[in-house]
Order: sequence, then C-alpha cells, then structure tokens
Amino acid sequence: MTEGGRSGNQRIVYGVQPVRELLRAGSQVREVLLDRDRSRSEPVEELLALAAAGGVRVREVARSDIDHRAEGQVHQGVLAVAVPFPYWDLGQLLERTRAAGDPALLVALDGVTDPHNLGSVARTAEAAGAHGLIVPERRAANVTPLVEKAAAGALAHLPVARVANVGNTLIRLRDEHIWSIGLDAEGTTELHACDLFTEPFVLIVGSEGRGLGRTSQLHCDLLVRLPMRGRVGSLNASVAAAVSMYEARRRRDSVA
Amino acid sequence: MTEGGRSGNQRIVYGVQPVRELLRAGSQVREVLLDRDRSRSEPVEELLALAAAGGVRVREVARSDIDHRAEGQVHQGVLAVAVPFPYWDLGQLLERTRAAGDPALLVALDGVTDPHNLGSVARTAEAAGAHGLIVPERRAANVTPLVEKAAAGALAHLPVARVANVGNTLIRLRDEHIWSIGLDAEGTTELHACDLFTEPFVLIVGSEGRGLGRTSQLHCDLLVRLPMRGRVGSLNASVAAAVSMYEARRRRDSVA
Repeated sequence: MTEGGRSGNQRIVYGVQPVRELLRAGSQVREVLLDRDRSRSEPVEELLALAAAGGVRVREVARSDIDHRAEGQVHQGVLAVAVPFPYWDLGQLLERTRAAGDPALLVALDGVTDPHNLGSVARTAEAAGAHGLIVPERRAANVTPLVEKAAAGALAHLPVARVANVGNTLIRLRDEHIWSIGLDAEGTTELHACDLFTEPFVLIVGSEGRGLGRTSQLHCDLLVRLPMRGRVGSLNASVAAAVSMYEARRRRDSVA
Repeated sequence: MTEGGRSGNQRIVYGVQPVRELLRAGSQVREVLLDRDRSRSEPVEELLALAAAGGVRVREVARSDIDHRAEGQVHQGVLAVAVPFPYWDLGQLLERTRAAGDPALLVALDGVTDPHNLGSVARTAEAAGAHGLIVPERRAANVTPLVEKAAAGALAHLPVARVANVGNTLIRLRDEHIWSIGLDAEGTTELHACDLFTEPFVLIVGSEGRGLGRTSQLHCDLLVRLPMRGRVGSLNASVAAAVSMYEARRRRDSVA
C-alpha cells in the first residue's frame, strides 16, 4: 500500500458508522474525538468499546472543535484521525482478488469528479461483494473525508487502487484475463443481455456529464446500456453502477 | 390534480435539464429567467426554442437574481417559475396506471425525509418505466425545488400522488389487486427470488435510518432484502430502490 490523499499526512473520518467501521477494520487510528455534550447512543457505545479494545485514545472535546475538523459537514459528534488513506497498488489489488477465489469483480471510475458519486459507488460495491475500486490519480474524485462519509464506512474495508491512466489499466487487466465492461448510454448490449458477468470483469463508470473517456471506451470489450423507459432517459452514474453490480451479483448467485 | 407544495402558489424549477423537461412536458410555466451574462450552450438554446414554441416569456436577468430564487443551489443560469406542483389524486393515478396497459409499477415512500433520496428515486423510477410515486403528506420529503433538481427533470413527467397515510393506501391498493412489496434489510425473500415483479405491485421504500414504518410493514404482502456480501451491510435507500425497480424491469422484459 502507498499512503496519500489530499489531506496530507492524516486521514479524517467522521460520522458514527464510518468511524465504527474504521475501528472494526483495525485501521491505524491515532485518536477519536467525541463531542463531550452529546448523549451516547448504542452505536456510539459500541464504537467506544472498539476503540478501547484497540487501544485507541478517545478525547472528549467541544463540538466546535469537531465542526472545524469536519469542515462543516454532519459528523454526529464523532471524528477519527488516522494514518493517511492506504491506497492499494494495482498489482496487490489483483493478487488479493485472485486469492479471493471467485472471479474478479472490480469497478473503475473514469473521470468521476463528484465526491458523492464516488462515495456511493464505494458503498454499493462493498455491499455487492466487489473486490475493489480503481480510480485515476488526476482529474477525478479521490478519497476525501466527504467521500468516506458518503460511503458510510465502506472505505474502511474496500480496497482502492489509484492509477495514472484508466486506459492503460484496462490493457493490463486484459493481460490478466479480466474483461472490461463499460457503462454507456449508447452501449450496444442491454444490461440484462450481458453474458460476461459471471466471468472476471471490471465495470467502467464514466462521469455523468460526459460519460466514458475516449481511451477507456476504446479499450472496453463491451459497452452496456441500461433499459430506459421514460422520457428523460438519464440515470445518476452511481445508480447505473449499482444496478449493474447487482445484476452481476444475481448472475453469479444463480450460477453458484 | 390538486395544487400544493411548500412553495405556496408557485413552483420553482432550476437547472438546464429540469427546466427543459418542464417545457417539454407542456407544464404551465409562467416565465423563464436566464442569466444575461452566461454564454448559451446547445441545451440552453434547445430550452429557449421550447419556451418560444410554447409562448413562454423569457427574461434575461442578473445572475444574483437567479441565485436568490434558487436559494443558493446550482442553477446553471436558468430558472422557471410555474404553477404549483400538480400532485395527483391517488384515484386518478390508479386510473392512469390501468390505462397504461402493463401491470402497475408504483413506488411508495414511507418516511423518506432526505430530498436527495426522493429526487433520486423519482429519477430512476421515471427511467425504469414506473407509473408513479406515492408520498405521505406529513413527516416526509415532498416535492420541493431541491427535489426537482435531484430528479434531473423526471418530475416534469412522473405523476406523484400525496396520501394521508401509507398503510391505508396499501389496503386500498390491495383492493385494486396491487401487491405491496416492502424493501427491508430483514426481509424474508431475497430480491432475485421474488416472483411478484411481473404482477401489478407497489414497492415500498423506507427511510434509511429506521427502515419501513410499522404500519406499512404490517400491510406488505412481501418483504424483500437485497443480497449483502460486504462487512458493512447497508445500502442507500434510493440505491436499494433503483436495484429493485430494475430487477422488476428485467423480469417484465424477459417475459414480454
């Protein structure tokens, strides 16, 4: 793993569920800050027990102190300071995926800049049993505190690899016998007719405005579209990704 | 239809796609405000042509004027003032659904208070070919400008009925031979094993924190859960709804 992230030399995670999952995952948490004036719910007590079990220091502070560090976002009175977000090396992610036994199910984001979309894709990917995410280093959302909040704790568990170029990554994945399936409104294959979901594959999700980038479109083995029955004909990128991941889940579960 | 909505005697819609869809739907638009300093993109020109064709007045104003009316949200330089959002009467919605020919596909929200979730469900419902939404009058998100923005134009086309009580509504729908399928993390049937999706049904979506309300849970014919393969085990409510609607779409299309 390499350390990185915009937040420099630390990782800020706030909200009860994200902090609890961070502790559950055994991440290196430096300290947990707790709003001293807030009454403690059951999930917060659970979180404190996890911190105690892991030897993590808990400091009770003024709410304003947490507000400031959470940059004005909703933090539910709890915030963790941890070592920088541990991006995975692509090679290590592929090794781990092979070791998992079932065919690769990866998700690559291509030019997704909205942190809520990245967080939402991470949350659904973790729930649907994906092995990891791939995000480009530049001109794209990376893992920030806001993304971790939107992911509702999923990024404590789901590996994320950062790559210089999505197109080149798809070439490398092809060498590993992993199909590239791009989500595209103009795709030639309708989602439910796609027969590749039981094979090892990476789903490529583009930005909502511009869709897939030219290079990654070029390197896709298949472009799939979702059925559109309305008059508007557009879906949120993270919703389209979720429907596709669960279609893969269905196909795999019905084979098993 | 009945008129209503928190905005009182008018409906505010902003953003290029929402305003364009409002005009395309032939809604009664009083006027369109356009940022006089913004260069015109192709979608904006298309929108202006629709306004001209419909005899809708377009006023070029200062950006700050639109900022103020859009309550600080992203408006892309365009805002429409229309007659109040036309909620449908439930009886009329059911008539229209029957007239559509294919088995009812409705979505009821039970205690969903997040405007982004309501907007997202509306957007996906319209794309997946649902006949309409049902929302409770109280203690729930209703259609506001923020919801219309999140729905990306879908609420210009998709009927929304407001009801006093979701539980009573499910009883009425049962009389109309419409099954009630609730989304519930503890549901007894896994989504992909649900055999009711080709029948007329209403999908009931609960709030993210508390799930389905007790009364609507009581009146559901079936509670379905999504497969969960991760360690966190939670999905965003609008994502779970989207996966379910598209599973219904798949079932119906494979029968047809």
